[in-house]
Amino acid sequence: MQLLKERIVKDGVAIGTEIVKVDSFLNHQIDVLLVDKIGEEFYARFKDQKIDKILTIEASGIAVACSAARLFGVPVIFAKKSEPSTMVDGTYQTEVKSFTKNKSSRICVSKNYISAGEKILIIDDFLAHGEALTGLADLVGQAGAITVGAGIVIEKQFQGGGDQLRQAGLQIESLAKITAIKDGVIYFAD
Amino acid sequence: MQLLKERIVKDGVAIGTEIVKVDSFLNHQIDVLLVDKIGEEFYARFKDQKIDKILTIEASGIAVACSAARLFGVPVIFAKKSEPSTMVDGTYQTEVKSFTKNKSSRICVSKNYISAGEKILIIDDFLAHGEALTGLADLVGQAGAITVGAGIVIEKQFQGGGDQLRQAGLQIESLAKITAIKDGVIYFAD
Repeated sequence: MQLLKERIVKDGVAIGTEIVKVDSFLNHQIDVLLVDKIGEEFYARFKDQKIDKILTIEASGIAVACSAARLFGVPVIFAKKSEPSTMVDGTYQTEVKSFTKNKSSRICVSKNYISAGEKILIIDDFLAHGEALTGLADLVGQAGAITVGAGIVIEKQFQGGGDQLRQAGLQIESLAKITAIKDGVIYFAD
Repeated sequence: MQLLKERIVKDGVAIGTEIVKVDSFLNHQIDVLLVDKIGEEFYARFKDQKIDKILTIEASGIAVACSAARLFGVPVIFAKKSEPSTMVDGTYQTEVKSFTKNKSSRICVSKNYISAGEKILIIDDFLAHGEALTGLADLVGQAGAITVGAGIVIEKQFQGGGDQLRQAGLQIESLAKITAIKDGVIYFAD
């Protein structure tokens, strides 16, 4: 998605060889017009499939998920992060390791909002090692629902999570694929 | 806002005398169409004022804030919650006590995204004792910006935070004001 890549080049901040900060338009300050364009692109890529619900994870996935959900005419569910020690009844739960934060957290979704057989599109802002996406797909699986695919705003392809999950059969549509970050420069696939 | 009140009566769950769960359409599963109507209502109530940015807090405020921001043509900023021990550089920070969770947390906003003199509309899903709203207004004040007003989806008026902040001069527009919760019944003002 050209518009997105241009915006990452213009306003993203490359830190070291692993991190791109997009705080200024995606995950702290939100440019709603850009987010709507991202939602349109996800719709274009998945519109031929039946989607019952969109699943994301708090907090940065919510805006993008809502923009896409409006076009699909389906609700959004956002998985909640809770401390591993927290008792959560009536939920599907799984552990997700964050490489950037170097800690594990439990994510959960109420059993009320994903049902067996439902077709779920997962949407998230970043895909790196694939831990969050794997966790979300696990929640869908626990419910007996089907993960139709995943829409990702920015994939850090060099961290390998996306290709691993594609090999496992998941359709992943990433709107900007970063192949490397070096000396403050962000390199994209194609 | 009649549509919202009807939805709260239909799908909200009253727990004890203090809590209304609206997990099924607002803060876990999100009904994007309803959230857009809520955004329109906030726009109607604040459209005569100059608004530069909308400030909310992760995670449940984000969807509503984005729906309103689209109409105002301004960006959203969401304050982040972090552990009190976390060092956060380059941010405005304040402590917020949560009565429901019975703990304090630090919320913060990058200094890059609120500037002196900017006119900020605060949007949040709930207003109860007023701690979150007070914290958000404090962040705005630290930046030398101006809190133009606050748009709240559900105010639990009987918990007093809203009236206290109104007396202090803040314009608060709450779309559903709950005056009491008793025996599973939710009572609204007017």
